[in-house]
Amino acid sequence: MHKPAPTEYSIHELLTLRWSPRAFDRNRPVPREHLLALIEAARWAPSCYGDEPWRYLVWDRFRDEASWNKAFDCLGETNRKWVKNVPVLMLSCPSGAFERNGKPNRWAQHDTGAASVSLALEAVNLGLAVHQMGGFDAEKIRAAFAIPAEFTPMAMIAVGYQAQADILEDAGQKERELAARARKPRETRFFESAWGTPVTLR
Amino acid sequence: MHKPAPTEYSIHELLTLRWSPRAFDRNRPVPREHLLALIEAARWAPSCYGDEPWRYLVWDRFRDEASWNKAFDCLGETNRKWVKNVPVLMLSCPSGAFERNGKPNRWAQHDTGAASVSLALEAVNLGLAVHQMGGFDAEKIRAAFAIPAEFTPMAMIAVGYQAQADILEDAGQKERELAARARKPRETRFFESAWGTPVTLR
Repeated sequence: MHKPAPTEYSIHELLTLRWSPRAFDRNRPVPREHLLALIEAARWAPSCYGDEPWRYLVWDRFRDEASWNKAFDCLGETNRKWVKNVPVLMLSCPSGAFERNGKPNRWAQHDTGAASVSLALEAVNLGLAVHQMGGFDAEKIRAAFAIPAEFTPMAMIAVGYQAQADILEDAGQKERELAARARKPRETRFFESAWGTPVTLR
Repeated sequence: MHKPAPTEYSIHELLTLRWSPRAFDRNRPVPREHLLALIEAARWAPSCYGDEPWRYLVWDRFRDEASWNKAFDCLGETNRKWVKNVPVLMLSCPSGAFERNGKPNRWAQHDTGAASVSLALEAVNLGLAVHQMGGFDAEKIRAAFAIPAEFTPMAMIAVGYQAQADILEDAGQKERELAARARKPRETRFFESAWGTPVTLR
């Protein structure tokens, strides 16, 4: 199911076709070549001083179900309702410090967000779907996978092929899957020359 | 000048063609339709609870040179050497709190990074170039533009058309403009099933 963004100004379709579905095909694995391409997309994201402050953990249910289950168990209850069908889970972990000198890196989370959405856009290119989640227990997953203290468990990432919305058992999740996409008004977020002054075309 | 990423696995060219040049055409403004398309791309980035925690300030030298100068003056000396030719500057400012309930939003910087790279990818689509910078005085720009305390001045963003590398006066900057692109080895950043175990194709 495509839900292209109803944009006010035309933008590239890789950007309009990316969205975050919940209906995933339980029986279709992510080809390893595609998984590596997603990683490649994340790698080439920009980062402050080229530090590439992100780390990613990957769990592939078709390859190592026990580890996938351990990651799955760290998700919140609401997410588990639909993530149970997802073949690949990932976790993004920005570093707190620059690799080159150990000093605090205040851009690490920002840069990791850039890497993860790059991955999501390559997923669109490959006919895959990606859905990032904040709803998980960060300290539980840190303990479960011995994530070093200097890294922050930031977002869980579901990767797989989409399925029909009617496989969703939760009525609210099914409704959201079919709902129209929307964004907040531009003038509430984008200002020109002075804080609060909207950007206008003319 | 194109410097496509020398990727190990093939990814969409919107992703390979994005890079961060320093040579910008001083005399070529950014068409307003294009500026609005860049903003549109940022708007449709994913965010935690759909909060769209980002704010952006835009300065267009061809529209309001005094304000552009005020923003430019907040950049570090090294960046000023090349940014003097840039027609449009932007500043990304993630919010510290969710708009819907005022609670701390630990994904705001992450989500803003996603919005900014989406903007940079739409720039590739439009033949524009984008270069994000951490080298600026965050408290100076906060004071200069009365940025509210709950927002973090995160990255300055240069937007414009590329020029030939030989317009760069700084020898080091010119060298970097022409240098090959590279990324750190995949196995240092991407792990599978356990922290530190590299993701492999087979």
